[in-house]
Amino acid sequence: MKKVYLTRKTHFSAAHKLWNDSWSEEKNKEVFGACANPNYHGHNFDMFVTLVGSPDPDTGFVINLKDLNQIFKEHIIEIIDHKNINLDVHFMKGVIPTTENLAIGIWEQLKPLVENEHRKLYCVKLYETENNFVEYYGENP
Amino acid sequence: MKKVYLTRKTHFSAAHKLWNDSWSEEKNKEVFGACANPNYHGHNFDMFVTLVGSPDPDTGFVINLKDLNQIFKEHIIEIIDHKNINLDVHFMKGVIPTTENLAIGIWEQLKPLVENEHRKLYCVKLYETENNFVEYYGENP
Amino acid sequence: MKKVYLTRKTHFSAAHKLWNDSWSEEKNKEVFGACANPNYHGHNFDMFVTLVGSPDPDTGFVINLKDLNQIFKEHIIEIIDHKNINLDVHFMKGVIPTTENLAIGIWEQLKPLVENEHRKLYCVKLYETENNFVEYYGENP
Amino acid sequence: MKKVYLTRKTHFSAAHKLWNDSWSEEKNKEVFGACANPNYHGHNFDMFVTLVGSPDPDTGFVINLKDLNQIFKEHIIEIIDHKNINLDVHFMKGVIPTTENLAIGIWEQLKPLVENEHRKLYCVKLYETENNFVEYYGENP
Amino acid sequence: MKKVYLTRKTHFSAAHKLWNDSWSEEKNKEVFGACANPNYHGHNFDMFVTLVGSPDPDTGFVINLKDLNQIFKEHIIEIIDHKNINLDVHFMKGVIPTTENLAIGIWEQLKPLVENEHRKLYCVKLYETENNFVEYYGENP
Amino acid sequence: MKKVYLTRKTHFSAAHKLWNDSWSEEKNKEVFGACANPNYHGHNFDMFVTLVGSPDPDTGFVINLKDLNQIFKEHIIEIIDHKNINLDVHFMKGVIPTTENLAIGIWEQLKPLVENEHRKLYCVKLYETENNFVEYYGENP
Repeated sequence: MKKVYLTRKTHFSAAHKLWNDSWSEEKNKEVFGACANPNYHGHNFDMFVTLVGSPDPDTGFVINLKDLNQIFKEHIIEIIDHKNINLDVHFMKGVIPTTENLAIGIWEQLKPLVENEHRKLYCVKLYETENNFVEYYGENP
Repeated sequence: MKKVYLTRKTHFSAAHKLWNDSWSEEKNKEVFGACANPNYHGHNFDMFVTLVGSPDPDTGFVINLKDLNQIFKEHIIEIIDHKNINLDVHFMKGVIPTTENLAIGIWEQLKPLVENEHRKLYCVKLYETENNFVEYYGENP
Repeated sequence: MKKVYLTRKTHFSAAHKLWNDSWSEEKNKEVFGACANPNYHGHNFDMFVTLVGSPDPDTGFVINLKDLNQIFKEHIIEIIDHKNINLDVHFMKGVIPTTENLAIGIWEQLKPLVENEHRKLYCVKLYETENNFVEYYGENP
Repeated sequence: MKKVYLTRKTHFSAAHKLWNDSWSEEKNKEVFGACANPNYHGHNFDMFVTLVGSPDPDTGFVINLKDLNQIFKEHIIEIIDHKNINLDVHFMKGVIPTTENLAIGIWEQLKPLVENEHRKLYCVKLYETENNFVEYYGENP
Repeated sequence: MKKVYLTRKTHFSAAHKLWNDSWSEEKNKEVFGACANPNYHGHNFDMFVTLVGSPDPDTGFVINLKDLNQIFKEHIIEIIDHKNINLDVHFMKGVIPTTENLAIGIWEQLKPLVENEHRKLYCVKLYETENNFVEYYGENP
Repeated sequence: MKKVYLTRKTHFSAAHKLWNDSWSEEKNKEVFGACANPNYHGHNFDMFVTLVGSPDPDTGFVINLKDLNQIFKEHIIEIIDHKNINLDVHFMKGVIPTTENLAIGIWEQLKPLVENEHRKLYCVKLYETENNFVEYYGENP
């Protein structure tokens, strides 16, 4: 069985701020610096989602990208793109919206939607800027 | 005289929303679409500033980049980076913060700071995403 | 009046071959080299279209990108993307599909669709690979 | 022993179409969409090949890139670049030329050529567009 | 425990030459080609450092990037950037400065500085040009 | 007559230092900072050369890229690539090798080689890093 890793990139633009409600404003500024700006700031996030599986003998595909794009559109883009992550995104409520936590949140949204007996979700990679990104491979990679 | 165009790239991350206060919410949503999200969204902006002049015979420079970086830092980055353009940026007050208007605003901040008898500001180029950008060359290019 | 240049990037993937029907096969191979492969080859083309105009005082836009995207989709992408430029693209019939000629062809498609009293088409820039691209500014730039 | 992973990027431009001969035209269009265009379309493929081994104590190299480039040129570029994958590439005969299957095909070409007692082929990564790519690590990674 | 991989990119520009002192000039030229130019050549190196750990519950961070940037600045950038790797960099003395060996050298500098009970150094990835890069994961990855 | 601007990218890696021989070491360090490191440093330079002309009716080309590549190889790459600009490059002797001056030097090498009655050299654009570049359009642009 020949396993291939297939990655699809998409992107969304969103506002956020890093803020721990149990801390003073001073502590927040000290730890999060400019990221704690009360009126928010924002980013163009690039998201790379990797699935692993054997290419289907009839199509040569790990997944038909039309199907993956539709899942991204409905379950990620329409929920995060051009939104405020702290205020508008249901699956990030109560979580400090660092790139680390956002990648975990997206993984948990996508996992039940993209997996079947032929393929698994392998990685969610999320760029906050071109200079920093995170990768999450699930709880037992 | 050999004129050379020198460009320096920098970047900043900021939140904004597109909203015309003289319009109804419906009209704003219709024209600006997702960009009118009330809680803001944001971008990583890439800014390319071009100066034109003859290289100094003693240095070979149109401008010493140390000096240009310092101007960017004090007059652009500290004012826009990790800020909300609608709420936090003095020179964008009362202006709809499209990329077009932001490029004009930045041009007007930079022009008196970078020009001298040897060099002129030639262009401010501003990327909102990797797929759209604007260029402004001043009022009488 | 403050003129701003707005650029939107899109992309399409297409097959083509470079071939002059009035030449022998030998001459075609000699001039066009590998680009004359009889069974075609192909590229991911990146297209940058630049309009120039004054930002609308009510919107801050040179053009609403929703409108420009719709024009790209109907008049360029649906016609060229995932097609064979030699065989499938009506506006390239009888023309050797070099990047030079394709940029001229796209310009002529777009010009009547994007211009009005407030804005003009300024440039069509077309990348055939990351290492070569052309720019066309119309007949009297 | 300090193992280092060395990756070399190259690229080729080729035409292909996705088509399953055992299906009707309707089924092919339904599954493969625009990728089933009868006259083909094409892409600029970026290929990243990764080898793993210990740097040679005399050279500091996992492999001399001159040697790797020569292998790429003879066994990949001259065979695929500016060609039609469905019609012109011997090692893809009878296979639907998805990026998944092409990465497997390239792996099998390169493996006997680049491996020796000091280094192994680790990964073939293939971009079809900047938004989708696959990685293949062999049968028992 | 949810492990996240965090990567930070930075870059430095340096001169080097590839030369084995125990070899003749002819042998050096034969093996290293243009890289053995006696007067050196140079590169813009891009460095990606990946740490792995669980996001801190109070901050959502694997590491505060301010801290990581400070380590890069003091221990890598000030030592290599705008320097000659053969002559100026203490931790590369006596080593042929291939990208392979430089990645190992940087790993060994960084490892004691970035690790603690919550996070480990996972990878140093070093680009010499956009077409070749190496990755080092330590001695027992 | 339809004029098209054709650009070809290439790259070279070289060492240099910025140093004015008529100044003290202190003055050099003060003005050029880290760029005055006595043992040199280096860069990957990206060079974009733009020609302007009408596509040839028989080929659709402003220039056959095979011919342009050959000119780059003989007159630029073999002279600068993997060299020390201060010491090894004849056309930069006696000139401070800033990106500004290097672009002028390359322009003067290329101009007589690429121009004919059908096309002119339009621009030499030179990136020293991804964050700074210069453009030179000749003496009377």
